[in-house]
Amino acid sequence: MINYPNGKKRKYNALKISQANRGMTLEKDLNRSNKYFLEKNIANIHKKPTPIQIVSVDYPKRSAAKITEAYFKVASTTDYNGVYKGRAIDFEAKECSQKSFPLKSIHQHQIQHLKSVIHHGAIAFMIIRFTSLDETFFVNAKDIINIYENKEKTRKSIPYSWFKKNCHLIPFNLLVPVNYIKVLDELYF
Amino acid sequence: MINYPNGKKRKYNALKISQANRGMTLEKDLNRSNKYFLEKNIANIHKKPTPIQIVSVDYPKRSAAKITEAYFKVASTTDYNGVYKGRAIDFEAKECSQKSFPLKSIHQHQIQHLKSVIHHGAIAFMIIRFTSLDETFFVNAKDIINIYENKEKTRKSIPYSWFKKNCHLIPFNLLVPVNYIKVLDELYF
Repeated sequence: MINYPNGKKRKYNALKISQANRGMTLEKDLNRSNKYFLEKNIANIHKKPTPIQIVSVDYPKRSAAKITEAYFKVASTTDYNGVYKGRAIDFEAKECSQKSFPLKSIHQHQIQHLKSVIHHGAIAFMIIRFTSLDETFFVNAKDIINIYENKEKTRKSIPYSWFKKNCHLIPFNLLVPVNYIKVLDELYF
Repeated sequence: MINYPNGKKRKYNALKISQANRGMTLEKDLNRSNKYFLEKNIANIHKKPTPIQIVSVDYPKRSAAKITEAYFKVASTTDYNGVYKGRAIDFEAKECSQKSFPLKSIHQHQIQHLKSVIHHGAIAFMIIRFTSLDETFFVNAKDIINIYENKEKTRKSIPYSWFKKNCHLIPFNLLVPVNYIKVLDELYF
């Protein structure tokens, strides 16, 4: 490797860089994918806004209302929902920096929510990205619920190998960074 | 009517008071109804949080993050969605204090959103309450879209009589203040 005059090493690993850049964050990638699905009339799926408890608001003259005190609330549902080919779609998305997915990153009320929407007929799943590997999995909600509800007896996290064996890798491309619709087509339609 | 010693008239119109109280606001009534549907395992339908643009956040030691500057954003979708008997449900709710519903209270992007979810197979509608009459109507989204898209040629508001003639009055009771599920059952299931 050649040192630049400033002493910094030039990075030749262009492929690795592009893979890292392509990631951005899972949320941005999902927003971009959902925007594509919406504009191409493929599906109508949105991220719900972050729930916020507003405490005080200023109403300055001639300008927009300004929130001056507010707090983040815990979401009682999952982050994403919508409709695809007549079916209600409901999912939660999580990034994971370790090689094992910690079960505590899913809240009890989110598990309840997933069970409830499955009961009412929605297609429910989780999208879990292992950021260090840049691999994004489609996980059937039923599998996560099963593991979660037996966790006392078994484990506190789910190893990467379990995802590799039991879940679907979600294909990536520049237009649609997280093409979970492709996985839905294979599994349900 | 008897005047009290303080000169105020005692109100004998108990029925009118109870009707006024029963109203609270449409949003509260819908939240209570949706809570009932959720707990009784009838449907899973939620109001989306209000979208907010966060500008600055304080992180005081040992306490929750405090949002100190934020602004309301215009919603790009409708306020309510979820799943009932396997179908995706999507609707917007509006209160109307006049005897005619002003079309400007529905945004163009909400009309676009309703068209899109219908295209993908959701059941889409609006719930419109005439507060002075305390009557709440279930309005098929297609009807509102038709009127909205022809509004240049016709009218700027929809009179109460149109709702009375073309829409379904949503039944009220104390447990379920806005029982739109009953209307869905009649129309779709």
